[in-house]
Amino acid sequence: MKISEIFTKTIKEAPADEQAKNAIVLIRAGYIHKEMAGVYTFLPFGLRVLDKICNIIREEMNAIGGQELKLTTLQDPEIWKATDRWDDEKVDVWFKTKLKNDSELGLGPTHEEPLIRAVKKYIKSYKDLPFLAYQIQTKFRNETRAKSGVMRGREFLMKDLYSFARTEAEHEELYERIKHAYGKVYERLGVGEQTFLTFASGGMFSEFSHEFQTVCDAGEDTIFLDRTKKIAVNEEVNNDEVLASLGLNRENLEEVKAAEVGNIFTLKDKFSKPLGLTFVDELDQEQNVLMGCYGIGPSRLMGVITELLSDDKGLVWPEAIAPYQLYLVRLGQEAEIVKAADSLYSELKDANIDVLYDDRDARAGEKFADADLLGIPWRAVISAKTVEQNSVELKARTSADMALIPVSELKNRLVKLR
Amino acid sequence: MKISEIFTKTIKEAPADEQAKNAIVLIRAGYIHKEMAGVYTFLPFGLRVLDKICNIIREEMNAIGGQELKLTTLQDPEIWKATDRWDDEKVDVWFKTKLKNDSELGLGPTHEEPLIRAVKKYIKSYKDLPFLAYQIQTKFRNETRAKSGVMRGREFLMKDLYSFARTEAEHEELYERIKHAYGKVYERLGVGEQTFLTFASGGMFSEFSHEFQTVCDAGEDTIFLDRTKKIAVNEEVNNDEVLASLGLNRENLEEVKAAEVGNIFTLKDKFSKPLGLTFVDELDQEQNVLMGCYGIGPSRLMGVITELLSDDKGLVWPEAIAPYQLYLVRLGQEAEIVKAADSLYSELKDANIDVLYDDRDARAGEKFADADLLGIPWRAVISAKTVEQNSVELKARTSADMALIPVSELKNRLVKLR
Repeated sequence: MKISEIFTKTIKEAPADEQAKNAIVLIRAGYIHKEMAGVYTFLPFGLRVLDKICNIIREEMNAIGGQELKLTTLQDPEIWKATDRWDDEKVDVWFKTKLKNDSELGLGPTHEEPLIRAVKKYIKSYKDLPFLAYQIQTKFRNETRAKSGVMRGREFLMKDLYSFARTEAEHEELYERIKHAYGKVYERLGVGEQTFLTFASGGMFSEFSHEFQTVCDAGEDTIFLDRTKKIAVNEEVNNDEVLASLGLNRENLEEVKAAEVGNIFTLKDKFSKPLGLTFVDELDQEQNVLMGCYGIGPSRLMGVITELLSDDKGLVWPEAIAPYQLYLVRLGQEAEIVKAADSLYSELKDANIDVLYDDRDARAGEKFADADLLGIPWRAVISAKTVEQNSVELKARTSADMALIPVSELKNRLVKLR
Repeated sequence: MKISEIFTKTIKEAPADEQAKNAIVLIRAGYIHKEMAGVYTFLPFGLRVLDKICNIIREEMNAIGGQELKLTTLQDPEIWKATDRWDDEKVDVWFKTKLKNDSELGLGPTHEEPLIRAVKKYIKSYKDLPFLAYQIQTKFRNETRAKSGVMRGREFLMKDLYSFARTEAEHEELYERIKHAYGKVYERLGVGEQTFLTFASGGMFSEFSHEFQTVCDAGEDTIFLDRTKKIAVNEEVNNDEVLASLGLNRENLEEVKAAEVGNIFTLKDKFSKPLGLTFVDELDQEQNVLMGCYGIGPSRLMGVITELLSDDKGLVWPEAIAPYQLYLVRLGQEAEIVKAADSLYSELKDANIDVLYDDRDARAGEKFADADLLGIPWRAVISAKTVEQNSVELKARTSADMALIPVSELKNRLVKLR
């Protein structure tokens, strides 16, 4: 893409109405637009990052047999009443609306109920289980406060997967498989090292529930972390009994701020029972399906990664989710320079390298500042000096070092890096 | 994908609460689930088709320079009041909701207003124009009746592109480019021959507006079609004056039912003026940006294609959007047959061929009926007979002819066909 053709632009000033670092830098770089508190438009660069995050999640969910579908935003009160989650006193984040005939509808804050109804007609026998179904869909939650940029939205993207099992053992096996897949997602997103499996209170069905927490100053949670064992406990369960049961020693724990980037729950028959999701087992007995639910918010992750990796110059994207791999800077408007830069741009595009070409008639400082603010992993400069040597000046976003390399080598380097 | 692992199943009986052919066959095949009237969940097969339709549209929009973004569902009344489209008397399809503080929000039925506000901060000079921006997003329209299955939803997917131009000539050039891209979309979706550019009344800004109409018995419109000239007029403009201006002869016109599958509008400054989207031109004059809007509904198209191409056995998908290219049927449970079918399945998957493997222990008739109902373009059978000859029996969904071909040839044939 040529910068001269993109409608967005970088902005020097921080937006007046934002407190969250992630929103400030994403708005300054032209990745998002604030529609209202907790509600953001994803502009072309932002949508590219979001789509890349979603695709990594999708690949890992597919790899463990997840079947993707897409449930609806509009929700029928009937099924939510059956599980006692329609009443605003019980679930306090509902957005509700009405049909012309005045009957009430909700906007999906989560999707256990409608998914159960959709799959129910297909599940009769033990032969129809187990399976994993998931979606990547917009959720709506009527938060009273929404101050954390894209980390906590009123409208936000969510990947929610649900497991359906016959027995507790089968559920456990699925749960472990999904937990492992979550770990792979964070690795691939470039936050694996900072992300820890965290034990939280288990609620009704198991001793613990699990969260994935990324160590991050902007996080809303406090966790107690054993870096060596790569696990943490959250505040609720930080007591001697729990630490002993997890083999943790209080002296090795570090108290840190963290952002929840995923949660996985055993639901047992909490929803399947009231909604009648049963199957007939091998002994001809009717049983409740045992469920789990597993969430990751791609837009929230984009915010957390921004908080964690960006610096005072702007965004810093991991290679896997950067909107472009290379920021190609042309310095100078002379025919020879334009020709060299245009031809390199074409060659890289033909090689399917995501390249953002700064073809503007602007100062070097402005172009370099934009390359940094946009957070593109690599920057290559074509100037009078480099043309003379048939080379480009290559620099990583995360380093101050520059290297003069032959033009012919750039493509191969980038292909290897991605 | 193995059929034994997919949670959806085909259903023999037509759903009791559906009148539309498209919904009936899509539900019977397990592609969609009806959440409520006009609101459908896309199950795994259905989502695969929908995604393929979206990707074809996306490729054609990108090819003409469209920049993809994603606006929000939740809408701020303020901008809609500025264009006088907030009042239910003016726009009668609003779904509205409220924040906790009781302030009203809407659910986007279309997105001119929020897009203009999002791009406004970037458009100052003539140098910032022209550009094309689009999104593929869920729209919400509070229709009084919703009886046409996925052809007219209360919640449905829409690709809406918007053009931003400096002059009428520039707008016309963009308009023609997009019109041409729309034609390519219908060609690639397999309905090019049945889809006609249709002249409708032009409203405020031009002599005509344009619709793309697909000839289809289930369509809600009546058009008058000149098949030779490949253009049509809709009812509103079917008068002598218009026919003369388009060079059409009433005697050559055929009256047919048709479904609108796309519309393209010149908006001129209808929205940019009240919302203050202006630019400073080469002569230092402030001008209103001239806009156009261009819609295609991927979910609606899925319904129209279903209506048009399915037969009494079920769905018939064009190769480009079928959820799978091949339905691989294993007849028999003997070790030799299982081994041959499993190994062919692996080989095809490794070659990135979308193959649906019917590995169930079921009768041939049931498997063939499901292959037809699901509408997979090709069906290959592995049986005792074919294993003996190291071959497969290949049949197209649209033909009764079967051919016995060597196993080794199947992959190459499928790669060529896709």
